[in-house]
Amino acid sequence: MASVRVAFQGEHGAFSEDAARAYFPSSVIPAGVRTFDEVFDAVDRKRASYGIVPIENSLFGSIHQNYDLLQQHRLFIAGEIKLRIVHALIALPGVRLKDVRQIYSHPQALGQCDRFLRRLKGRETIPDYDTAGAVKHLKEHGRLDAAAIAGPGAARVYGMAVLKTGIESDHRNFTRFLILSRRPLPAAKPAKTSIIFTVRNSPGALFKSLSVFALRDINLFKIESRPMIGKPWEYLFYLDFEGNMNDKTSRFAVDHLRETSPYVKILGSYSIGKTVV
Amino acid sequence: MASVRVAFQGEHGAFSEDAARAYFPSSVIPAGVRTFDEVFDAVDRKRASYGIVPIENSLFGSIHQNYDLLQQHRLFIAGEIKLRIVHALIALPGVRLKDVRQIYSHPQALGQCDRFLRRLKGRETIPDYDTAGAVKHLKEHGRLDAAAIAGPGAARVYGMAVLKTGIESDHRNFTRFLILSRRPLPAAKPAKTSIIFTVRNSPGALFKSLSVFALRDINLFKIESRPMIGKPWEYLFYLDFEGNMNDKTSRFAVDHLRETSPYVKILGSYSIGKTVV
Repeated sequence: MASVRVAFQGEHGAFSEDAARAYFPSSVIPAGVRTFDEVFDAVDRKRASYGIVPIENSLFGSIHQNYDLLQQHRLFIAGEIKLRIVHALIALPGVRLKDVRQIYSHPQALGQCDRFLRRLKGRETIPDYDTAGAVKHLKEHGRLDAAAIAGPGAARVYGMAVLKTGIESDHRNFTRFLILSRRPLPAAKPAKTSIIFTVRNSPGALFKSLSVFALRDINLFKIESRPMIGKPWEYLFYLDFEGNMNDKTSRFAVDHLRETSPYVKILGSYSIGKTVV
Repeated sequence: MASVRVAFQGEHGAFSEDAARAYFPSSVIPAGVRTFDEVFDAVDRKRASYGIVPIENSLFGSIHQNYDLLQQHRLFIAGEIKLRIVHALIALPGVRLKDVRQIYSHPQALGQCDRFLRRLKGRETIPDYDTAGAVKHLKEHGRLDAAAIAGPGAARVYGMAVLKTGIESDHRNFTRFLILSRRPLPAAKPAKTSIIFTVRNSPGALFKSLSVFALRDINLFKIESRPMIGKPWEYLFYLDFEGNMNDKTSRFAVDHLRETSPYVKILGSYSIGKTVV
């Protein structure tokens, strides 16, 4: 099977790259860029076949920035995958836990492993930009007295050893990633469709909007309101429903929604993704 | 007016402390703790009169962790305030921009100021745990060749100078904070009530839940679904509606909701908060 070039934000070995490898059956040529903006750009400008971005996390909620980019760009959601975020303590091969004096990682990852770090004692924790970047740094500097916290994928990428895995305090840490494409792809049944819409400011307006799905027995997977800054009382809604815009029922429901919603944008119909643990 | 002791997560000078000072008309005795968990504990155990925690951000979404803590603890939401997150470049008094060789801050704050940092050129950016903590660090080490990125409040707290303010790339960065209390407080009209509820797994279940508000012409401010991990097809909903649990209409609506929802928890009724820019 041909390999595909996939753009993601972060260093080689980042969680987004792990998610891309778990999603695509063919081999992935990773194209790490600096920002989410650049992921969308890379797909837009055909520097990558696909992009992958995190859209929501079970501890931290939706990443509005990527919803904004979906609104601004003309890309389609071609798929999704949910990845359990596992943190590992990673060091150069041969380094033992008792040799480790300093532990590098992104402050959020250090925070997510605080119970493990407190039990270790006497080790200095040092904030870094990036989890995979911290592993890369240890490798480049041949550090025998230090370790990094990152996903196990980062150890593989840099030829490093995993001293301990699953060190995160809360194991219910999942991130949902979206696959971005320049054109819609065929979706297996049951498919999911993601849309963004607004409603007019009146009591019951959202209720009326949801009636277009309820009246057609369409399941909802996600609904979220987002206040529009500078426009009190105006809201954007993110909605994921069961169905495919190639099917009549979904099309009728969205046509019905357009009767009352000043703004509706279809982000894509795609196969419901699996969860990788 | 008597002063109140308010628990918040972070170093002295953190955004949560700014929000507390903007919220309370009386003087605030800040009690910074290490984690959100400890904020709830401090109020529970009467080590503080109130707590303040961020609940959602205009760029990063809801902070599920604090919703979870609201579910686990028996505290009430006593108020809310929305704060614009402004980043400033802060240094010891007398330090000029051209003296600055290194810039310290939390990676997220450095990322939020990336346009400003790229224009500066030739300065090394160094990740730190905390925005206010980076300012404290410069002060303690008497650094004349470095600056930190944090809220302007951190400069006041540590007697430091603001070299430039409003350096964030996106000025639409607002955080909504909740005030936590051991008992419900009286709320001005129009009040807001926050609840968490679940629905049975059937198409239209959410629609029926929302009907209890729509039928009574009750405005909704926020709705968000959260998938329950390990329970596919089960969802928690966060809902904020206009009204006070002291009023009949709100009580009738919530009683009606209990007829169909297996779980309803009232987090509190409180005055609709102002936005501080």
